[in-house]
Amino acid sequence: MRLRHKPWASDFLQEHNSIAISNPFDYKGKWKELFGNDHPIHIEVGTGKGQFLAGMAKANPEVNYIGIEMYESVIVSAVQKVIDEDIPNFKLINIDARELTNFFADGEIGRVYLNFSDPWPKTRHEKRRLTHKSFLDLYKQVLVDGGELHFKTDNQGLFEYSLKSFSWYGLSLNWLSLDLHKSDIEGNIMTEYEEKFSSQGYRIYRVEAKFPSEK
Amino acid sequence: MRLRHKPWASDFLQEHNSIAISNPFDYKGKWKELFGNDHPIHIEVGTGKGQFLAGMAKANPEVNYIGIEMYESVIVSAVQKVIDEDIPNFKLINIDARELTNFFADGEIGRVYLNFSDPWPKTRHEKRRLTHKSFLDLYKQVLVDGGELHFKTDNQGLFEYSLKSFSWYGLSLNWLSLDLHKSDIEGNIMTEYEEKFSSQGYRIYRVEAKFPSEK
Ligand SMILES: C[S@@+](CC[C@H](N)C(=O)[O-])C[C@H]1O[C@@H](n2cnc3c(N)ncnc32)[C@H](O)[C@@H]1O
Ligand SMILES: C[S@@+](CC[C@H](N)C(=O)[O-])C[C@H]1O[C@@H](n2cnc3c(N)ncnc32)[C@H](O)[C@@H]1O
Repeated sequence: MRLRHKPWASDFLQEHNSIAISNPFDYKGKWKELFGNDHPIHIEVGTGKGQFLAGMAKANPEVNYIGIEMYESVIVSAVQKVIDEDIPNFKLINIDARELTNFFADGEIGRVYLNFSDPWPKTRHEKRRLTHKSFLDLYKQVLVDGGELHFKTDNQGLFEYSLKSFSWYGLSLNWLSLDLHKSDIEGNIMTEYEEKFSSQGYRIYRVEAKFPSEK
Repeated sequence: MRLRHKPWASDFLQEHNSIAISNPFDYKGKWKELFGNDHPIHIEVGTGKGQFLAGMAKANPEVNYIGIEMYESVIVSAVQKVIDEDIPNFKLINIDARELTNFFADGEIGRVYLNFSDPWPKTRHEKRRLTHKSFLDLYKQVLVDGGELHFKTDNQGLFEYSLKSFSWYGLSLNWLSLDLHKSDIEGNIMTEYEEKFSSQGYRIYRVEAKFPSEK
């Protein structure tokens, strides 16, 4: 993602800290209190400008959404969407997902979404891919028992790697399309990257993977 | 596969029963004796006209190959290849793969190949797909511990289904390409169907799946 330096971004996030939560560690195990209800909490890791979660939050008012994005200059656009469209069930956290277990309690999250994650094609960068075992460990810990990871990408190499990584981890694939926009999925909500790449004729890949239930 | 009735096929197979083994049940646990050596035995289920295994057998003289094909009128072409090219490490069995465990002993097989298996797209025909659990049970039983299944197809729906079925079975994916002919694979040996569909511009999918080791 091309980053434009936005010197005002930091102040903007601080000003809107009821949307972009600046002290996420304080809410560990208490996110329901912040939302003020018992609805399940679904997160997106690498949420970018927030188009996907904004759409999901409006379509599913009975679910709470949290977008995690490490770049200030990008996440501000997501915060702006929440302000403009006044979406009560969509919060944001400007942080690296490696911190996930420091601000979510075990089992606090109902579902994890990954969309168009950075591909890191070089083998020596394998550990940076958001579908690497080290990230799956984090998702598993914060997810409910038997929770799901839903993943979309246009990147063939990352999708191939991710299917292998999921199989090594023992995840079950319960839904899979190797050409999403020609599949029979209903109500697909597009991300920024998805709009861009699908309009250029690239295939979109999508999978729903379920963590093994311990019970 | 379009089948032409070949009234002479049955006699032809009988005449060449040192290649097309007519009494496979007698060799259960004794296939090494038939080949006269201790080389690993790799099988292809639904071998069609035998182009793939003929190529594999010539490229890998230290492996023995057995092609399983239920249609007489198709398998005769495979037998003819073995005669014409005099390939000692390639035998055929004209039988339905559902019988697999009746003519192979547990652990007798080193690897299973599936190529361009019939897709059976209707859900009510799911059980007929060669990657359905009921077939995976058979492969697992005849395979060595931690044995592998190598699968190629152009059929997107069958490939999607198969990746799900493999995940439900706990198989590990150790090699995967969603566009084989643009991947960096070396020494790929094409099947009849692969030549046909790849020349028409269709993508070829390929995966290597490993059964969980019990030891
Ligand atoms: C290619 S963009 C995709 C954005 C959006 N999901 C979409 O589909 O349009 C990937 C985003 O993930 C973010 N990201 C990558 N690694 C991250 C991490 N470890 N923690 C938080 N965000 C991350 C990047 O900053 C970037 O904004
Ligand atoms: C579409 S053809 C592919 C042939 C060849 N593998 C190729 O790639 O060119 C599938 C073959 O599998 C065979 N087949 C399907 N189900 C089978 C079964 N249960 N047992 C044995 N052969 C089977 C069919 O008769 C057919 O010849």
